[in-house]
Amino acid sequence: MEYRIEKDTMGKVQVPAHVYWGAQTQRSIENFPIAQDINKMPKEIIRAFAYLKKAAAITNFEAGVLDEAKKNLIGQVCDEILGGQWADQFPLVVWQTGSGTQSNMNCNEVIAYRAHVLQGGNLLDEQKFVHPNDDVNKSQSSNDTFPTAMHIAAYQSLVEVTIPGITKLRDTLAAKAKAFKNVVKIGRTHFMDATPLTLGQEFSGYVSQLDHGLRAINNSLAHLSELALGGTAVGTGINTPKGYSENVAKHIATLTGLPFVTAENKFEALAAHDAIVEAHGALKTVAVSLMKIGNDVRMLSSGPRSGIGEIYIPDNEPGSSIMPGKVNPTQCEAMTMVAAQVMGNDVAIGIGGSNGHFELNVFKPVMIYNFLHSARLIGDVCVAFNDKCAVGIEPLHDNIKKHVNNSLMLVTALNTKIGYYKAAEIAQTAHKNGSTLKETAISLGYLTAEEFDAWVKPENMVGEINL
Amino acid sequence: MEYRIEKDTMGKVQVPAHVYWGAQTQRSIENFPIAQDINKMPKEIIRAFAYLKKAAAITNFEAGVLDEAKKNLIGQVCDEILGGQWADQFPLVVWQTGSGTQSNMNCNEVIAYRAHVLQGGNLLDEQKFVHPNDDVNKSQSSNDTFPTAMHIAAYQSLVEVTIPGITKLRDTLAAKAKAFKNVVKIGRTHFMDATPLTLGQEFSGYVSQLDHGLRAINNSLAHLSELALGGTAVGTGINTPKGYSENVAKHIATLTGLPFVTAENKFEALAAHDAIVEAHGALKTVAVSLMKIGNDVRMLSSGPRSGIGEIYIPDNEPGSSIMPGKVNPTQCEAMTMVAAQVMGNDVAIGIGGSNGHFELNVFKPVMIYNFLHSARLIGDVCVAFNDKCAVGIEPLHDNIKKHVNNSLMLVTALNTKIGYYKAAEIAQTAHKNGSTLKETAISLGYLTAEEFDAWVKPENMVGEINL
Amino acid sequence: MEYRIEKDTMGKVQVPAHVYWGAQTQRSIENFPIAQDINKMPKEIIRAFAYLKKAAAITNFEAGVLDEAKKNLIGQVCDEILGGQWADQFPLVVWQTGSGTQSNMNCNEVIAYRAHVLQGGNLLDEQKFVHPNDDVNKSQSSNDTFPTAMHIAAYQSLVEVTIPGITKLRDTLAAKAKAFKNVVKIGRTHFMDATPLTLGQEFSGYVSQLDHGLRAINNSLAHLSELALGGTAVGTGINTPKGYSENVAKHIATLTGLPFVTAENKFEALAAHDAIVEAHGALKTVAVSLMKIGNDVRMLSSGPRSGIGEIYIPDNEPGSSIMPGKVNPTQCEAMTMVAAQVMGNDVAIGIGGSNGHFELNVFKPVMIYNFLHSARLIGDVCVAFNDKCAVGIEPLHDNIKKHVNNSLMLVTALNTKIGYYKAAEIAQTAHKNGSTLKETAISLGYLTAEEFDAWVKPENMVGEINL
Amino acid sequence: MEYRIEKDTMGKVQVPAHVYWGAQTQRSIENFPIAQDINKMPKEIIRAFAYLKKAAAITNFEAGVLDEAKKNLIGQVCDEILGGQWADQFPLVVWQTGSGTQSNMNCNEVIAYRAHVLQGGNLLDEQKFVHPNDDVNKSQSSNDTFPTAMHIAAYQSLVEVTIPGITKLRDTLAAKAKAFKNVVKIGRTHFMDATPLTLGQEFSGYVSQLDHGLRAINNSLAHLSELALGGTAVGTGINTPKGYSENVAKHIATLTGLPFVTAENKFEALAAHDAIVEAHGALKTVAVSLMKIGNDVRMLSSGPRSGIGEIYIPDNEPGSSIMPGKVNPTQCEAMTMVAAQVMGNDVAIGIGGSNGHFELNVFKPVMIYNFLHSARLIGDVCVAFNDKCAVGIEPLHDNIKKHVNNSLMLVTALNTKIGYYKAAEIAQTAHKNGSTLKETAISLGYLTAEEFDAWVKPENMVGEINL
Repeated sequence: MEYRIEKDTMGKVQVPAHVYWGAQTQRSIENFPIAQDINKMPKEIIRAFAYLKKAAAITNFEAGVLDEAKKNLIGQVCDEILGGQWADQFPLVVWQTGSGTQSNMNCNEVIAYRAHVLQGGNLLDEQKFVHPNDDVNKSQSSNDTFPTAMHIAAYQSLVEVTIPGITKLRDTLAAKAKAFKNVVKIGRTHFMDATPLTLGQEFSGYVSQLDHGLRAINNSLAHLSELALGGTAVGTGINTPKGYSENVAKHIATLTGLPFVTAENKFEALAAHDAIVEAHGALKTVAVSLMKIGNDVRMLSSGPRSGIGEIYIPDNEPGSSIMPGKVNPTQCEAMTMVAAQVMGNDVAIGIGGSNGHFELNVFKPVMIYNFLHSARLIGDVCVAFNDKCAVGIEPLHDNIKKHVNNSLMLVTALNTKIGYYKAAEIAQTAHKNGSTLKETAISLGYLTAEEFDAWVKPENMVGEINL
Repeated sequence: MEYRIEKDTMGKVQVPAHVYWGAQTQRSIENFPIAQDINKMPKEIIRAFAYLKKAAAITNFEAGVLDEAKKNLIGQVCDEILGGQWADQFPLVVWQTGSGTQSNMNCNEVIAYRAHVLQGGNLLDEQKFVHPNDDVNKSQSSNDTFPTAMHIAAYQSLVEVTIPGITKLRDTLAAKAKAFKNVVKIGRTHFMDATPLTLGQEFSGYVSQLDHGLRAINNSLAHLSELALGGTAVGTGINTPKGYSENVAKHIATLTGLPFVTAENKFEALAAHDAIVEAHGALKTVAVSLMKIGNDVRMLSSGPRSGIGEIYIPDNEPGSSIMPGKVNPTQCEAMTMVAAQVMGNDVAIGIGGSNGHFELNVFKPVMIYNFLHSARLIGDVCVAFNDKCAVGIEPLHDNIKKHVNNSLMLVTALNTKIGYYKAAEIAQTAHKNGSTLKETAISLGYLTAEEFDAWVKPENMVGEINL
Repeated sequence: MEYRIEKDTMGKVQVPAHVYWGAQTQRSIENFPIAQDINKMPKEIIRAFAYLKKAAAITNFEAGVLDEAKKNLIGQVCDEILGGQWADQFPLVVWQTGSGTQSNMNCNEVIAYRAHVLQGGNLLDEQKFVHPNDDVNKSQSSNDTFPTAMHIAAYQSLVEVTIPGITKLRDTLAAKAKAFKNVVKIGRTHFMDATPLTLGQEFSGYVSQLDHGLRAINNSLAHLSELALGGTAVGTGINTPKGYSENVAKHIATLTGLPFVTAENKFEALAAHDAIVEAHGALKTVAVSLMKIGNDVRMLSSGPRSGIGEIYIPDNEPGSSIMPGKVNPTQCEAMTMVAAQVMGNDVAIGIGGSNGHFELNVFKPVMIYNFLHSARLIGDVCVAFNDKCAVGIEPLHDNIKKHVNNSLMLVTALNTKIGYYKAAEIAQTAHKNGSTLKETAISLGYLTAEEFDAWVKPENMVGEINL
Repeated sequence: MEYRIEKDTMGKVQVPAHVYWGAQTQRSIENFPIAQDINKMPKEIIRAFAYLKKAAAITNFEAGVLDEAKKNLIGQVCDEILGGQWADQFPLVVWQTGSGTQSNMNCNEVIAYRAHVLQGGNLLDEQKFVHPNDDVNKSQSSNDTFPTAMHIAAYQSLVEVTIPGITKLRDTLAAKAKAFKNVVKIGRTHFMDATPLTLGQEFSGYVSQLDHGLRAINNSLAHLSELALGGTAVGTGINTPKGYSENVAKHIATLTGLPFVTAENKFEALAAHDAIVEAHGALKTVAVSLMKIGNDVRMLSSGPRSGIGEIYIPDNEPGSSIMPGKVNPTQCEAMTMVAAQVMGNDVAIGIGGSNGHFELNVFKPVMIYNFLHSARLIGDVCVAFNDKCAVGIEPLHDNIKKHVNNSLMLVTALNTKIGYYKAAEIAQTAHKNGSTLKETAISLGYLTAEEFDAWVKPENMVGEINL
């Protein structure tokens, strides 16, 4: 490979000749050979940096501390990055310095050197027209840019991937709840037969879970909308022009179309990432909901002959490499595995969040890596589960009817007629004798056949249905 | 011991003669000999049951399904329980049935049998005036009462213990932030010397963390305010009179003075406890904040001679059984241990929450046990830390001045004057030579002594102070 | 209440007149009003301290640094404590100093003052015959006694409670596996019908899980057997007589009957509690196993009429306060709740373990609190589950036969006869038409009735049975 | 793109013309569009499959159920895969069916179709010479191959990456412990000054942690060495030739050079992955150790002027984009972030492990994904931390001496001379007056200058040094 020489404050570094990055990026590649093939800094962070570097350049220009030519060049490179170019120019991994300094410098270097080339320069020029630190990073520190990028990336991922994914699944489940609202089926508590409800009611519980989950995510957006930018090194805003914090937040809001504001307290914004912890708590809540939904769907569809078998789910692929004709609830499995992952990610984030010290938390990359992983997984798996499973769910009426009609727990309807104790005696006797409730009730002399038929009607035991 | 015989639907049970509980409580004692000396069902749950049983009795009376005498007796016993009587009548542990049925029955039995005695009866009477199932539990199921008690207890603990505790600490820290707002000190990032800030600014970050934490808790109250009561066995509300759900929620709201409402979707309310997962996510966020604050305080007060030693914290007790005169940051230690516990509790709750199936989640007791543990611990430890540590924190001015004046990172003020690279050269040279920044800057010829004195002033490097 | 005055190095403290504890215990009560009614320092730790204080006194006596009278008195009080006396003299909570200094001093004070009384003195005497620090704590520090008590308590709990509990359950399950070894039933993978196995084989998997879990626990005992005692303040053993570490470990080994040794490296033994983290990893592994077993048992016993219903489990109590005659798998629920708790405890322990700094880890109390909680819960719940559930498990042959005979996955036996693709076609066609495999196989022309009967025999599909 | 048509038991699928995979792989790509750019099935699993498919072919050939030509072709393709070819032929993600069936089929298809081409065939041929199910998957099921691949990959990662990485760091730290064995420094407990020890003693604690960690990992290898292969669909070994399990394990052992054996109980081996849970518990223990070590190193090297500053660590890169000349403990940060990740991964694995049901655990991919992630991260980060940090650690003698000589806790040496109380009075008085211990001791009249000099020698307070 051909190389060129780049310099930073520590001296010279050999860098591949044709890359846009410089000395500090190269040092990081060499210093952190840790899972480099699988744990690149998430692309959402690079995108967020492009927004913030452009916004900073504009703000610096407006404050009179950056000239127009440089401002325009920086903005142009950021637009290229946002347009999808230069993805291969960001080779660094999550496992670097805990402030994300090296990824900030990677962005600074790529933007500066690409700007230099755009302006007509050559990568081999010793002096570049735009300087990574003095220009691209002007009025900034890694300590405020990286957490700003964290919030931008987290917010964008939630509103672009996570919330739409959950909403799509929620809407399908709501439609199913409505469609199934009169399908009376047996209820199950403790995995045991209980009083009836309708399949639509059962599904309405899932919808309610997701509605609450969406609300929880939305509740966490306010904290995420606060940006650290302007705090610079330790939160005091050293080396920033007047009004910088507010203005740069406004520009970021405009560029992203999202309601970002400057954080009221920059000291928290650098030293703690409770907003990430809090928002991921909402993601974990959704993961918990998805685990419940995924489990229910696979158990309700279990069988085909020796399980519960009350719903049909689509057959998407052969289920077994050895058992011919087997079909499995694979979408449920992907979804519940995602739930497990998100619950694990939550712990990594909490530990990272708890370990900030003094003016800086240095678990930033691991926190945002896990956050974005969860945000993406939940969004994606909700869409997959929706498209390949939920939309195709249908009741299996034969099994549903058989189960509800056999159930001993229909006896509950008699509590208010003959009291809990006599009702229990009927159920226990029927269970012991393998007989029906009706036979048993009559033979015990607690009621007549007519009374039984009038009082024990599954369809009357499901309450009001408002779906 | 003397015994009496009680009966339930499964038959006769020997019960200690003088206790108010009955057959089902006794069975649970015998069936679940699991950590009985340390894991009683939390008292907050018993209190919550007293509210809900009274509210249910009133609602049943108003609906015409319970007579006034019984309503009054039930209410009277509930008031006794709320007044602190009969704590020893609730012997069951967390590790019982996952629906909490046995604790619900424990309440039903104690209320019924105590009512019977209040009404003039004797515990040995075979027929009691008030029946545990048919009267005290009327229009209820364990499946809706226990989650209702969970929400009542969780909500009450948050507003009575957790939020006041956090707020007390937050207010003290805010007062300290104000008092220390002009104490210029060195900043530290990556544990390394950085640019200065004031001690007040540093403390303001803690205040901001707790403010956001309080907001996160408050955001979670809406979901907790939803009560399952009225859903009965599976969410359909079987065996409840018309309007029962709304009315009983109103009565609970009135009795507790808290804004409880009936859950819009009872199927979720029985089968999932995402509200607990979500709200505990907020508690975990606060735990993460407390870990940060506790760590900072102990490191800032470290020493007395070979640490950082920038703040004084009160000496509350001898610190060592072997090292005479040693004093330790013990309140920080209690607080950070609580943080670790809450972060563990969060996982137990998430796992419990994810394992509901069909119409019921049967991890209710373990979920609420952990939730109430965390709510209590955070509230209590904030008060202890506040009273025994935070209120006494004072700056140690000598160390603070020494540290800030020595710092090489004051060089950052020169970035905008001479550029990042020359500034770095000054700092690196001074570091290597053990010289001061000023000497080095002059000897390198980058600025004059006058310029240095004019440009490098720690007090000018801390930005605006709005505290 | 009446009080007396006690002194420590910080001054005078009012102590209830008749308690054996002194100034430092009293300070801790007042300084740490945190969950005092529910989180006392575990009794296993107090017991461990009694062993170690007695061993230390003997060792000090042998080394010539403690006189015989004091040695005997200290030993006598320790024996009283081990005999169950004075449980009410240890009022401190987990949430104290992170080194456990105050619980060490609580022990020192109670032993010293009780010794003084035994020797004929009075609690009101200003000078006591035995001194908490200079005598009872001689050659010790909290920093080495508390971790020693942690290891003693952890080891004892494992061998006295946890391992016997697991073993009891394991043996019952092994007996069931043997008893059910020829009960051919349908297998289920992905919750879907699969090829057959025997119920005994299914249970043998649980036995194998517990066997491996026991092995994992046993593997962790070696690290737990290492005692910190002799390291004193920072691991160097300052203020200990020659040979102290080895000798005191020997005495502890003799007194407890367990193979304790002195830790080779005392610096680790004070500053890190990886042994606790490691051993709890084994407990968590068992918890994971118990979750699996508990879930299987409740699902296999689900029904009675609309579930899987392949095994009977004992009815221990009425299952529902509203549904008469309902019986639930309550022991499974207690066991799986315990599993969730242990998995949460694991995280608290890991966080505590990761936060040791320099010469001391100050998350000792929270770590051992969670460890002992898990050790106890697993032991207790295994016994309860065993006695009240596992011993009564029986196959429900009718359901088992119905399920296995209906299964489409018996077709797997044909793979080696007609190939995977044709076998799949048979299964899919039978599923679509609701027909039997045999009918379908014949009508598709892939084999004769005789071939089918010869090749598709569930009892021939379960392999060798070595149980 | 050009396509060809492939078929499976569900019908025809369009597959890119030139890929080696077939219908089922293609279905999985389309059915699971979940984080496809970042969560490919780990390459270690593909490698493990290559070993096991080759071993299975050999075993099948030896058993007379696979002909030699096919055996050879399968082996040849497996060798190609092991040699690094065809990495792009395994496009599936972790978030697929929970049994890993689709990755097993991906391997079956690629091996079969590549074999067909090797043998002279064309990918467009409808009939291939080697069949994915009937030949490559012969005597196998996803249910036994995937867990076998899990154990192979886990074991290999541990012995090839994790253990060597930890060992490398351990050896460096041991060398440092030896080199620093006489560097007397202040101890710190509770972050507070304590009695002295040597820097070598301090480092020896880290070595002991890693030694115990390595032992814990080694303890877990036995369970990992058990292979599920031969259990096929549900553990009974249906459709395997006699002796298959033992023989295939032997071949895998030979091919990998690792001591694999057939699992004694195949039902556990399919339905539970406690071996993964157990072994990851050891990895988590190491993560906890690394967090401690990383924290200590960064705090000991903190400063350069206002921290503890007792050790030098190498400067690898500029530390700040805004603070010139700043250097940060970046390797410590990468290492502690890894620790947080591993602790999170542990929870994901535990949840996955706890959710197996009946004859199969369907959280296999998420479990092994997290396991391999941790194994890799720990191995890699230990090497990076070793090479870029640990090897360069040196004592900063000036600070070390200053700290130890100032320390008030040297007073501890006087306990055995004048008693704990008088020693405490000296320390407290010196602290209050800012005076030295010696001055204070003499002025209080407790000892003479000569006695002080004789008794209070830091170098005499560090005990025996065996390093």
